[in-house]
Amino acid sequence: MQERAEIVQEAPRAPLELLRPEAVAAPESGIVEVMKYGRGREGMIPLWAGEGDLPTPPFIVEAATRSLAAGETFYTYQRGIPELRDALARYHGRVFGREFAPEEFFITGSGMQAIQIALAMTVGAGQEIVIPTPTWPNAAAAAGVLGARPVEVPMTFGNAGWTLDLDRVADAVGPRARALFLVSPSNPTGWTATHDELRFLLGLARRNGLWILADETYGRFWYGGGERAPSFHDVMEAEDRVLFVNTFSKNWAMTGWRIGWLEAHPSLGQVVENLIQYSTSGVAAFMQRAAVAALDRGDGFLAHQVARARLGRDILSRALAATGRCRFATPQGAFYLFFRVEGENDTRKLALRLIDEAGVGLAPGTALGSGGGDFLRACFARKSEEVEIAAQRLVEALR
Amino acid sequence: MQERAEIVQEAPRAPLELLRPEAVAAPESGIVEVMKYGRGREGMIPLWAGEGDLPTPPFIVEAATRSLAAGETFYTYQRGIPELRDALARYHGRVFGREFAPEEFFITGSGMQAIQIALAMTVGAGQEIVIPTPTWPNAAAAAGVLGARPVEVPMTFGNAGWTLDLDRVADAVGPRARALFLVSPSNPTGWTATHDELRFLLGLARRNGLWILADETYGRFWYGGGERAPSFHDVMEAEDRVLFVNTFSKNWAMTGWRIGWLEAHPSLGQVVENLIQYSTSGVAAFMQRAAVAALDRGDGFLAHQVARARLGRDILSRALAATGRCRFATPQGAFYLFFRVEGENDTRKLALRLIDEAGVGLAPGTALGSGGGDFLRACFARKSEEVEIAAQRLVEALR
Repeated sequence: MQERAEIVQEAPRAPLELLRPEAVAAPESGIVEVMKYGRGREGMIPLWAGEGDLPTPPFIVEAATRSLAAGETFYTYQRGIPELRDALARYHGRVFGREFAPEEFFITGSGMQAIQIALAMTVGAGQEIVIPTPTWPNAAAAAGVLGARPVEVPMTFGNAGWTLDLDRVADAVGPRARALFLVSPSNPTGWTATHDELRFLLGLARRNGLWILADETYGRFWYGGGERAPSFHDVMEAEDRVLFVNTFSKNWAMTGWRIGWLEAHPSLGQVVENLIQYSTSGVAAFMQRAAVAALDRGDGFLAHQVARARLGRDILSRALAATGRCRFATPQGAFYLFFRVEGENDTRKLALRLIDEAGVGLAPGTALGSGGGDFLRACFARKSEEVEIAAQRLVEALR
Repeated sequence: MQERAEIVQEAPRAPLELLRPEAVAAPESGIVEVMKYGRGREGMIPLWAGEGDLPTPPFIVEAATRSLAAGETFYTYQRGIPELRDALARYHGRVFGREFAPEEFFITGSGMQAIQIALAMTVGAGQEIVIPTPTWPNAAAAAGVLGARPVEVPMTFGNAGWTLDLDRVADAVGPRARALFLVSPSNPTGWTATHDELRFLLGLARRNGLWILADETYGRFWYGGGERAPSFHDVMEAEDRVLFVNTFSKNWAMTGWRIGWLEAHPSLGQVVENLIQYSTSGVAAFMQRAAVAALDRGDGFLAHQVARARLGRDILSRALAATGRCRFATPQGAFYLFFRVEGENDTRKLALRLIDEAGVGLAPGTALGSGGGDFLRACFARKSEEVEIAAQRLVEALR
């Protein structure tokens, strides 16, 4: 007990110093940086984030409100309330045309958390995850927080648009690789893997004992034939090592809610439950009631959103093409235009300048992994009048 | 591209096999196991979880409802909305009698997530965190998911109640130790560190470059003098390496909401923000509005809850003492009675038996770290009539 006398020693002066290096190394989001610069400016049209301009529709909000009023404010199931897991099974049944079991679905506090859990299930310190880029950077950063190393495979942009060189993906799979993260349709490029490409990646994963982390968040924002983009669901077997991560954010305008899901083989259920328990310990029941409403009664709203996004895409594409200075591939899916401006290489600076000069907020490609650093990302999931104004302002500023 | 032909090979048969070992090793919650056994039984009085019987009060629910109706359903600040960080600073000012800055507070998707983030900031693979036990097991399990090793320091139960041997804590700090996790007032024992004990632990942390993860969730559920338990706030300097983790769950009956906070030196702000970004990317604004109402207008409700808990404590203590078979220390804080039953060593089995025979749900001490395996935990934060019935049923079953 003699040490008790010694504590008059001075308190430390630099808290940051003894932090875990992986935590300090987690990068500031390059998108958030730009948003902080422009937030709150009058007349700004914010196309920087991955969200549209519609608030959550009333039939979804009301489900949450009713649940709250009924006192559903206690702890609930770690895997999600049975009603929501049932609704997810029904929804997937409709979308993919075969039966799904509720036991395949686990509710998470955002799609991001589904990714965090999928990463914790598959890649540890010193291991690697292969990630085609440019892409939404959060999965790579979250892998880094776990002490794992993201191995980026830059896609190429040419006359045929964005292409993923499958041989480069195969070459990137080293002895420490444990997983492959694929966002398709892609945020930010809109590139979408074909069934052949999905089959190739699945085969690669099988041969190398990799997990596939399939982010099909934008699967319904699809401008090709049919109601949805190609999916790993179309090519896999039930026992394949595929973990789907998804979110209510985009389809049903619920970005701010922070609710998503993980889809996995039911044999993994206890592991997923434990990882939920030791991260956020579940999702509010009243949020989950809202999610049930979104799935069961949200097809019309979703169709409306997709139609709007398609219109926004067309408006923005036409305007930027007309500048003669912008190059891009017309996106097949998702809701972003990812474009390069001739003669502009510092897109971080350009994004800040466009906030000042055009009053339009864009995300710089530097924030989205290697291969797209000289591009800018514009979200076009907004009402067409506003996309039109943003497009005209951009055209003027880039002239 | 020739590999494309090869993927006819069979899909793998055992998904669990290639999971990351740290994920598979995460234990099932011993409390959840018991809850699953008893959930939904008619007439059950559930004292197993760390929550009371009151739903969230209307003035808090209404703040969320209003925010939802106003369309606050978009992405928001990663660190928390300014109004809530301000409210936390005011609340802490009232409770601790000095000024706090909003920049010290970060909103998380549960107290559990605050712990997960604090762990990610401080302990990595192969490192250690020292944890006095028995205690709520989730911090140790979450450290394990990160690849770190919890080093338990069992407290002792004797005639003076629960005591923490400070020399044993000091001895447990090896070269790989990076942090110390302390829940005070303690869940499950009700033991509460004195100012001298807090000073000793702070000195130990200073000398060894440890972070203190201070879980003062139950600081207001305090049955000693004054309005709150002793706190690291009383003994530390601003620059000390103390990370506070806390939650709205207990004080304001918001267990199901999943909202909490992390308090840290403002110089750590960007690191905390990044770790929020790469785990759940923030907390719903409408939840945060509710939390503002809880802090600004919830003192009366909190006082009511504490008075109820004190009554529940007295009822349950008296009844169990009268059996002559139960031993426990009257808790100084928190809202659990942690008791041993003479001649009963398998508390997991005993908890299951008491569900069947008494219709009372308790948490087995085996779920709460070493040192308390032969104890049971009963939450007494319920209306006194029900605590009375539960007590009588337990007395009969244990006779």
